[in-house]
Amino acid sequence: MRVYLDNNATTKVDPVVFEEMKPYFVEKYGNPNSLHQFASEVHPALKTAMQKIYAGINAPKEDSVVITSCATESNNWVLKSIYFSEILTGKKNHIIISEVEHPSVIATAMWIESMGCKVTYLPINNEGLIDAEDVRKAITDKTALVSVMWANNETGAIFPVAEIGDICAEHGVPFHTDAVQAIGKTPVSVQAINVDYLTFSAHKFHGPKGVGALYIKKGRELLPLFHGGSQMGGYRSGTLNVPGIVGMGKAIEQAVDALDFEMPEVRELRDEFEDALLEIPDTFVVTPRNKRTPNTILISFRGIEGESMLWDLNNAGIAASTGSACASEDLEANSVMEAIGADDDLAHTAIRFSLSRYTTQEELDYTLDVVKKAVERLRGISSTYSYAPEGHVSGLEAHH
Amino acid sequence: MRVYLDNNATTKVDPVVFEEMKPYFVEKYGNPNSLHQFASEVHPALKTAMQKIYAGINAPKEDSVVITSCATESNNWVLKSIYFSEILTGKKNHIIISEVEHPSVIATAMWIESMGCKVTYLPINNEGLIDAEDVRKAITDKTALVSVMWANNETGAIFPVAEIGDICAEHGVPFHTDAVQAIGKTPVSVQAINVDYLTFSAHKFHGPKGVGALYIKKGRELLPLFHGGSQMGGYRSGTLNVPGIVGMGKAIEQAVDALDFEMPEVRELRDEFEDALLEIPDTFVVTPRNKRTPNTILISFRGIEGESMLWDLNNAGIAASTGSACASEDLEANSVMEAIGADDDLAHTAIRFSLSRYTTQEELDYTLDVVKKAVERLRGISSTYSYAPEGHVSGLEAHH
Repeated sequence: MRVYLDNNATTKVDPVVFEEMKPYFVEKYGNPNSLHQFASEVHPALKTAMQKIYAGINAPKEDSVVITSCATESNNWVLKSIYFSEILTGKKNHIIISEVEHPSVIATAMWIESMGCKVTYLPINNEGLIDAEDVRKAITDKTALVSVMWANNETGAIFPVAEIGDICAEHGVPFHTDAVQAIGKTPVSVQAINVDYLTFSAHKFHGPKGVGALYIKKGRELLPLFHGGSQMGGYRSGTLNVPGIVGMGKAIEQAVDALDFEMPEVRELRDEFEDALLEIPDTFVVTPRNKRTPNTILISFRGIEGESMLWDLNNAGIAASTGSACASEDLEANSVMEAIGADDDLAHTAIRFSLSRYTTQEELDYTLDVVKKAVERLRGISSTYSYAPEGHVSGLEAHH
Repeated sequence: MRVYLDNNATTKVDPVVFEEMKPYFVEKYGNPNSLHQFASEVHPALKTAMQKIYAGINAPKEDSVVITSCATESNNWVLKSIYFSEILTGKKNHIIISEVEHPSVIATAMWIESMGCKVTYLPINNEGLIDAEDVRKAITDKTALVSVMWANNETGAIFPVAEIGDICAEHGVPFHTDAVQAIGKTPVSVQAINVDYLTFSAHKFHGPKGVGALYIKKGRELLPLFHGGSQMGGYRSGTLNVPGIVGMGKAIEQAVDALDFEMPEVRELRDEFEDALLEIPDTFVVTPRNKRTPNTILISFRGIEGESMLWDLNNAGIAASTGSACASEDLEANSVMEAIGADDDLAHTAIRFSLSRYTTQEELDYTLDVVKKAVERLRGISSTYSYAPEGHVSGLEAHH
């Protein structure tokens, strides 16, 4: 059996999405910026896709949604543009991000820091959550940007973006949120909260890899990260990735439709699976379920190296992760576990299971079985594992 | 009949290329940076594709080829990285480009200029060519970069990149070339000339849109344009576009194979078509054929607005262009025609026909017929057209 429980890293393209993309490779291949029918014949599909993308985040017509190549590009673009227009010019000297942002925000912020900008890294508490009031405390009259993700990629923790948006609006500071892990998992409306820039990416919601977007509220300007042929109204040059955009449109429509019908099912499957996992002694989950996206579990098995668990899972055909795929080439401790102050031992034991609307009961039953056997085997050969007395779990509440 | 003669704008994906890409959407969708079999099962295809991409430009193993989302990204990356490391730091104060670079180079250079850097725009002569000695004359001890395209997108003119590379090497100045219009049309080897950075893009050689690359010679460093999860050895973060990379690999293999067998045929078709076009009175082609890529014709029909000709062609199902698709939304004069000093009248009459290995004799016969009728119709209703006396063609040699 093969079981894919790494949907926060990337997702399978929905077959319906791929069907929509197909004609735009070999048959309808015109460059939409050209002046002939090979170009104009792709316009209706592009227009439909853009309407779906706008609808997917409830963006009003007067705002901009600019197609990029991925969330990493969108995140780099916002932060670097702010650097050029606000920091390098000396108007401002400070940005605020959370300490558990995606590497594309953290690494960019650190680079901006290396160029002389102050960066506040907001802490998370022992539930893996952010306190919006910390944003208020950190804001100065020299703050150029606040960037806090909508939902965390590792725990699924949903951050208080509405409150943070209000605080930013109150202080006139632009607010950017990386909503990559939120779309299709929790309702995302750019009109429901105060937000100026919002990042998302197709391959996280059963769309194709290589296409993302950035929402920009009317009145908020950005310098281009890609100068050139003035595609996308001059915001982002480069030949349009027609099949990618068509796929992203269909995928966000499917994902948002699935919110009402399929996500409650995913949540139920997740909750039952999590209950069963927590029956295993000395297991810990960080964020309360009602404050998490419905598909994600970050669970620690005391005494078991995350990579050892992954190995056993993988041998049984199961895909999970120890954290962000964007950091998985180096075997570091899970960054959220470190951020909540878990001891080194625990920080290396976190495993992330992330479900999708394709996940089945049968797959989870099988996975539970494999996990139980792996725990037994790995704790049996562990040199460090012994049952930790209750209360000695630093930084974490034992859930069981 | 539908005839596509706008292959310098973008190309149809080769059906063989699309077949290779197909499994990586719905079936093999793992994130290659993850640590499980859904990830590792895509590694062989990625490895094969990267080998083909290296082979396609004859890059030695020790050099880097970094996958990007398009040529616009690659060009922005090189110029902006040089800006950060050399210009902003005050080490250098000057870059050199040609005045007919792609908009992604020109607009980026102009932005760097706006940040206080000196930019030399090398002129082209009346054959649409660059004199390598102009590079030597322009280089100072404060020159940070020379960026000159391998082949021009509008005329197909092949620029003296070998000589320019030698001059740059002699002066220790890094040399970047945008080879987007050269790959698959003329042999491109990064070992045959002195070159430090080379841009290319899949959709120009029958690969998919949304994937490009940048070659970087060993020892030449670049700051990332995309900070983040350290994919591509830290050079370029972002989840890998697996089907895009697989497609680019197959496409460059096909394109380079086709160089020996199919490009001579394309050249023959092009030459015959051009001969026939030049039978029409008052027509002008800029660059001598032996100094051009084998698929491109930029031809002026005196007295006929380029857009009017496009309209007639398009009504007959034929796709051509008045210049770069990246600048086609605004109806400006053709930039190469302007650069060679053609009068305003002629600068607005240029039409680009760009063939591919899919172009047939039948298609060109049909196109010739349509062009002739269009010329007759449009000159008949032209208020400005009368046969210009020989010798009064400013900046251009009349070929007929």
